[in-house]
Amino acid sequence: MPAPPVLVLNGPNLNRLGLREPDVYGTETLADVEAGLRRRFPDVDLRFEQHSGEGALVDALHASDGWGGVVLNPGGYAHTSVALRDAVASVSVPVIEVHVSNVYARESFRHRSLVAPACAGVIVGFGVAGYSLAVQYLADRAER
Amino acid sequence: MPAPPVLVLNGPNLNRLGLREPDVYGTETLADVEAGLRRRFPDVDLRFEQHSGEGALVDALHASDGWGGVVLNPGGYAHTSVALRDAVASVSVPVIEVHVSNVYARESFRHRSLVAPACAGVIVGFGVAGYSLAVQYLADRAER
Amino acid sequence: MPAPPVLVLNGPNLNRLGLREPDVYGTETLADVEAGLRRRFPDVDLRFEQHSGEGALVDALHASDGWGGVVLNPGGYAHTSVALRDAVASVSVPVIEVHVSNVYARESFRHRSLVAPACAGVIVGFGVAGYSLAVQYLADRAER
Amino acid sequence: MPAPPVLVLNGPNLNRLGLREPDVYGTETLADVEAGLRRRFPDVDLRFEQHSGEGALVDALHASDGWGGVVLNPGGYAHTSVALRDAVASVSVPVIEVHVSNVYARESFRHRSLVAPACAGVIVGFGVAGYSLAVQYLADRAER
Amino acid sequence: MPAPPVLVLNGPNLNRLGLREPDVYGTETLADVEAGLRRRFPDVDLRFEQHSGEGALVDALHASDGWGGVVLNPGGYAHTSVALRDAVASVSVPVIEVHVSNVYARESFRHRSLVAPACAGVIVGFGVAGYSLAVQYLADRAER
Amino acid sequence: MPAPPVLVLNGPNLNRLGLREPDVYGTETLADVEAGLRRRFPDVDLRFEQHSGEGALVDALHASDGWGGVVLNPGGYAHTSVALRDAVASVSVPVIEVHVSNVYARESFRHRSLVAPACAGVIVGFGVAGYSLAVQYLADRAER
Amino acid sequence: MPAPPVLVLNGPNLNRLGLREPDVYGTETLADVEAGLRRRFPDVDLRFEQHSGEGALVDALHASDGWGGVVLNPGGYAHTSVALRDAVASVSVPVIEVHVSNVYARESFRHRSLVAPACAGVIVGFGVAGYSLAVQYLADRAER
Amino acid sequence: MPAPPVLVLNGPNLNRLGLREPDVYGTETLADVEAGLRRRFPDVDLRFEQHSGEGALVDALHASDGWGGVVLNPGGYAHTSVALRDAVASVSVPVIEVHVSNVYARESFRHRSLVAPACAGVIVGFGVAGYSLAVQYLADRAER
Amino acid sequence: MPAPPVLVLNGPNLNRLGLREPDVYGTETLADVEAGLRRRFPDVDLRFEQHSGEGALVDALHASDGWGGVVLNPGGYAHTSVALRDAVASVSVPVIEVHVSNVYARESFRHRSLVAPACAGVIVGFGVAGYSLAVQYLADRAER
Amino acid sequence: MPAPPVLVLNGPNLNRLGLREPDVYGTETLADVEAGLRRRFPDVDLRFEQHSGEGALVDALHASDGWGGVVLNPGGYAHTSVALRDAVASVSVPVIEVHVSNVYARESFRHRSLVAPACAGVIVGFGVAGYSLAVQYLADRAER
Amino acid sequence: MPAPPVLVLNGPNLNRLGLREPDVYGTETLADVEAGLRRRFPDVDLRFEQHSGEGALVDALHASDGWGGVVLNPGGYAHTSVALRDAVASVSVPVIEVHVSNVYARESFRHRSLVAPACAGVIVGFGVAGYSLAVQYLADRAER
Amino acid sequence: MPAPPVLVLNGPNLNRLGLREPDVYGTETLADVEAGLRRRFPDVDLRFEQHSGEGALVDALHASDGWGGVVLNPGGYAHTSVALRDAVASVSVPVIEVHVSNVYARESFRHRSLVAPACAGVIVGFGVAGYSLAVQYLADRAER
Repeated sequence: MPAPPVLVLNGPNLNRLGLREPDVYGTETLADVEAGLRRRFPDVDLRFEQHSGEGALVDALHASDGWGGVVLNPGGYAHTSVALRDAVASVSVPVIEVHVSNVYARESFRHRSLVAPACAGVIVGFGVAGYSLAVQYLADRAER
Repeated sequence: MPAPPVLVLNGPNLNRLGLREPDVYGTETLADVEAGLRRRFPDVDLRFEQHSGEGALVDALHASDGWGGVVLNPGGYAHTSVALRDAVASVSVPVIEVHVSNVYARESFRHRSLVAPACAGVIVGFGVAGYSLAVQYLADRAER
Repeated sequence: MPAPPVLVLNGPNLNRLGLREPDVYGTETLADVEAGLRRRFPDVDLRFEQHSGEGALVDALHASDGWGGVVLNPGGYAHTSVALRDAVASVSVPVIEVHVSNVYARESFRHRSLVAPACAGVIVGFGVAGYSLAVQYLADRAER
Repeated sequence: MPAPPVLVLNGPNLNRLGLREPDVYGTETLADVEAGLRRRFPDVDLRFEQHSGEGALVDALHASDGWGGVVLNPGGYAHTSVALRDAVASVSVPVIEVHVSNVYARESFRHRSLVAPACAGVIVGFGVAGYSLAVQYLADRAER
Repeated sequence: MPAPPVLVLNGPNLNRLGLREPDVYGTETLADVEAGLRRRFPDVDLRFEQHSGEGALVDALHASDGWGGVVLNPGGYAHTSVALRDAVASVSVPVIEVHVSNVYARESFRHRSLVAPACAGVIVGFGVAGYSLAVQYLADRAER
Repeated sequence: MPAPPVLVLNGPNLNRLGLREPDVYGTETLADVEAGLRRRFPDVDLRFEQHSGEGALVDALHASDGWGGVVLNPGGYAHTSVALRDAVASVSVPVIEVHVSNVYARESFRHRSLVAPACAGVIVGFGVAGYSLAVQYLADRAER
Repeated sequence: MPAPPVLVLNGPNLNRLGLREPDVYGTETLADVEAGLRRRFPDVDLRFEQHSGEGALVDALHASDGWGGVVLNPGGYAHTSVALRDAVASVSVPVIEVHVSNVYARESFRHRSLVAPACAGVIVGFGVAGYSLAVQYLADRAER
Repeated sequence: MPAPPVLVLNGPNLNRLGLREPDVYGTETLADVEAGLRRRFPDVDLRFEQHSGEGALVDALHASDGWGGVVLNPGGYAHTSVALRDAVASVSVPVIEVHVSNVYARESFRHRSLVAPACAGVIVGFGVAGYSLAVQYLADRAER
Repeated sequence: MPAPPVLVLNGPNLNRLGLREPDVYGTETLADVEAGLRRRFPDVDLRFEQHSGEGALVDALHASDGWGGVVLNPGGYAHTSVALRDAVASVSVPVIEVHVSNVYARESFRHRSLVAPACAGVIVGFGVAGYSLAVQYLADRAER
Repeated sequence: MPAPPVLVLNGPNLNRLGLREPDVYGTETLADVEAGLRRRFPDVDLRFEQHSGEGALVDALHASDGWGGVVLNPGGYAHTSVALRDAVASVSVPVIEVHVSNVYARESFRHRSLVAPACAGVIVGFGVAGYSLAVQYLADRAER
Repeated sequence: MPAPPVLVLNGPNLNRLGLREPDVYGTETLADVEAGLRRRFPDVDLRFEQHSGEGALVDALHASDGWGGVVLNPGGYAHTSVALRDAVASVSVPVIEVHVSNVYARESFRHRSLVAPACAGVIVGFGVAGYSLAVQYLADRAER
Repeated sequence: MPAPPVLVLNGPNLNRLGLREPDVYGTETLADVEAGLRRRFPDVDLRFEQHSGEGALVDALHASDGWGGVVLNPGGYAHTSVALRDAVASVSVPVIEVHVSNVYARESFRHRSLVAPACAGVIVGFGVAGYSLAVQYLADRAER
């Protein structure tokens, strides 16, 4: 039986990764990230979604219930969305929150994540390498 | 002339009622709630909607203007949405906020509802029986 | 065996209901409320008490242990009394907090209830109809 | 070469402008605003959009990149949306935040705009005349 | 027709005035205050009450409805009692809050009076002379 | 030897007393207040000053050192001026703070007076009658 | 001359000690506590009072002036009562505040005691053994 | 009858506009602003004043009562002056608050304007073009 | 088998007890305290340590695991040390926090103890007698 | 070419130095300070100004642009004046903030200086010797 | 030339990993972690240190300057230590903060890390697998 | 008799002065500072210590009791250490707090010094010249 898929789920503005504010977010686009992850983890069934809407992210989380894991970059919703937090708590799949920039070194409203307490783990500040670390963790976990 | 309909409007994650965290939310599903309300209030023209998106809830409230009442469980948006509050204030239909769990006994960010000040009343903590109390109030009110 | 009684317990200033600030509290007096509830729930053994003192309310809660329920309007003590909260926690009877006005639409010190986390449920803003919803819940509960 | 278009982008509940709370928002509808602006600025290529959803507003901002300017009334999202702020920061078009009412004279949660720090300018409290001032600024700017 | 009476209503610990902490409260006892006021205002029908309980003070305020005025020193309840504030708001008699010591120069929790916003006026820091100023105001007012 | 003079010192905007916002400040002008006080206290050597500037008020307080008292209505500076507080602390004359309106029933930034802790007493909310109570206290004090 | 008596003064809900929430408060009743203290301190003239009302506790403290000490468990009033703090400050008897549970490990509103700054000492978290430590201290003190 | 004059009133440090911190405030001096406005609005009777003192600004506002409008850049006093706010509230002329820089993108103490709630509108962040937008609004208003 | 030892562990500056600020801390030195405890509890195997460093106190707590109890006066670390709190939580020995002075009557940063929630009990304000009460509790406990 | 002058600029109430509250501010007058500084720094062209008004201090700072330095004791304005901070930021002369008393050991509103972030350095608590240290720094700096 | 070493630096109480609170921290000891990392990264020159003292951690960070990376678990110092943050900022080696438990789901004082803003990245909540992810990142980085 | 020595005591990370973040801390090393001070103050018996540990700094302060003065740069402990504050309060030697950078212009957690209220004076922002001003003050003081 094949391993269940892993969803890489990106929130608002991450479709503009690599196109805006390169000193904050770097120059790799979301397509580059996807290609890199597929290259590094050829044995993981990776799925990619990006949504600007809070409700669409909630729905995507529900749809992933029972999968092998979710790598979630909630973008700005991390700091404001109780709905997203409740969605994470309502699924049994392990969800890993990733932020590309070091949110702790930016404006104070970015220091708090409402979503983090419901997640299995949080990875912050490694640039797009954070996605890779998250998938690594899920792949290791699947092996155990 | 038939009485105007009553909308039972549920927000994000309430489609998972009865499926997740049963110690917090109980074991009845949203379909069970709908069936129970129809049984108890056969003479009320009940309509049911559930949306994960904040904008869709705003639109549903606008569409209910002039109806007999709205029973609104805004889910996590209760604590974060000025848009929903403004939507409630922009319609003349009485809106009743319902929460299944006792939000005052949970995390502090759930103690504040941005929507409540614009509502006709608030019912908290009775489990799914809260929906029934809200419809009861609207039915009584229609009779007066 | 007859059903255990239900206590409707009112706190400070509610003896002046209907006599003061009618735009906030309406025009029905506490006697009107009592008469209305007896009419609507002829089969419930309703008891009514009103006390201005915090200690007297604590004592009344203790005395109701084992009853069918308490409908508690703590008035201003809702926002300031740890003693009342502890009293609610110290009895096994279900206690329902009721507020006549929509406290969330008034001064900010009325937005917090110290008592609510210990209650079975909270009903706010329906005017005196809130008492009726609370008894309704307790009556339904007794039938189950 | 024609001047690039200017987007007038309205958020949740502004479709009800002129229909609700006239003492706060006045009596002109959004259609009136559109007609008035076209009359006053016949040489500006004005586009109009209104969305209730946070994600749809984010997408509209992305789509306007490279345009002559955006006049953004974010409605209630002004006070709660990091996603919208990030969207403004992610485009190079000048964005002007407009509020119809004097938000500083209303509830304290309306005093803070999360979006404003990323905008080129902010115009508050002039009623619907604020839209006109914003377009005026963009038209003057285009001439320089 | 004789002028309606004026109630001088003292709260907890004021029965110990003049007996404790003389550098804060002076050396005159409550009996001295009563004698002095009767001497200075022979034509005013002065009544005196002192209660340690919050509920008893609420009841006394209710009982004074329709009188010529209340001079209220709520003692420590000034800073903690919503019930007392609501009681002041529930009577039509003008209530004047008096504090013997300058509460603004003491601990920060004494800087806020929950009762003051409902009062006709507030007099703070003149020692026991504050009672006299309050009665003076009520006597002048009765003459107008 | 004649008694030392008493200064009635008014701050910014009090020159417009009786001319603006009559529901907040009443209809008596500052000239009316002066005339009324001279009539009521013919034996007190009353001096009147009004200044819009914080520095001018500080200077006036310094100049009154050794006088019989100062009745100070600092207007808006009450809530923002450490300089005025320090000026009151730097003179040995008793200073009485007066506010015409009940500042505790208005915006929250008016609830705190930086000047009050340095004053001999505070009188709030009696309309222009507050000036009279303050002079009364100083006149009584001079007699003792 | 016999040593002056020691008052063990308990506040609201402590009459239910041992009857409610045994994991928080243990299983010994207030009668058990009294019996245990009499057994352990046969030479101390121990008096016991329990009151639900804030005013009654204030009065009891006044009545103990000149005694050998007061062991005060203010219950919930510890966190809300300025009146009780002022009562402790108004008597010369040493007052020791005792809490049965570790209030610092419970809800944040229990972390602050308004009464503690006026007390001779505070003992928290030892279960009912705290009463014994307090009496021990007073007995030792009497011997010195 | 000629239209009433419009006052452009600048507060502290704006006499140094264009001379200091050009990246924050631009390079145009206050004289440049005056010349530009006169050129653009030849039919408006523009008056210009600049004062460093809070009291002088208060006096200038009083003197403008009955004029066609005031364009007020309060400089740093925006964030600290209750006196200025009260002065705006005390005149019937429409007052428009203008800030040259985007105060929302600077230190947090610049995010709050005490003056704004009393103003007819607020214009922030357009550089010196903000003055022009404000006069535009007043000129349009005069025409209606 | 002899009873396990009890550690009396003092933090920074307590080596200067009795030498500094006698009105706050009394005149007994730490040596006096040790001598007194040995005299009073001849049957308890008392050990004494004092460390200025946070890490050394952490190590000492680890080393006491399995002992009969720790009497811990963390000095200033009580208010700032998460490390010490975690150390207390990481050992199974009962730890009692003692403060010589009444920290609740001093600066506000001394009102909170980060260590207290992890302790078995807290004793505050009895001077050096607090150490004795703590050992008494441990000795009684050992007997049960 | 002579060295540019150094301005010693004092704010409100410092004209009363040595005359008031000697335990806080010492007994040397401002004239004593001036004489002492001239004696100690005979080669520095010292200028002295003292103003009670915020605006006058702003003007004095502007006038010193290009000088050798400013020693600024802003008195109470340190804690409340954004205007003064902006004035310091608008001049290129190094400004040193001096406070005679240790403001950190006084009321909490004195702990924050709005002016300090714009200054070259801050000297607090050395009594009038602080002026001397500030001039010393400026003299040393001129030599480098 | 061999790659520079990587330091795995653990703070207070982590020497007790696997020995205490296994539901929070798991059952692997620090020795297990070391063995596991050596096994997984045989080509990385791993060094391990653990210190209870804040100063010792600061010194260890200084000593690692120029190395290949530091994996830092600051334990409780994460939330309280400015010294540690400054130490991270003072070295040019990339420092990665790791927490074993999900600190965002624990007490609120654990939600803020003072150290994080100075770090290259942060990994939270993966149990001891977090150390492995951090070394992975450093190893990948060395290859680029 | 020779004058007692003066201790220049530096806290964590100051051993890296001149080596890190030169735009914040300048380029002079601690050795340069020591050499400069010895050159400037040949007649002062200067001692130099630097410690990374909070406890070691506490011990050094104790050891300096009776000396001529301590120039203390507590580094990051200034903002977090109650232990250091208590140590300063426990010695009779005058302690002067020095910060090299202008801490008021940096992160908000650096604006508060817990140590400052116990110090004789505070010198901030002059770079390493601050040490010299502090020694100057102590030398002047010794002469008086």
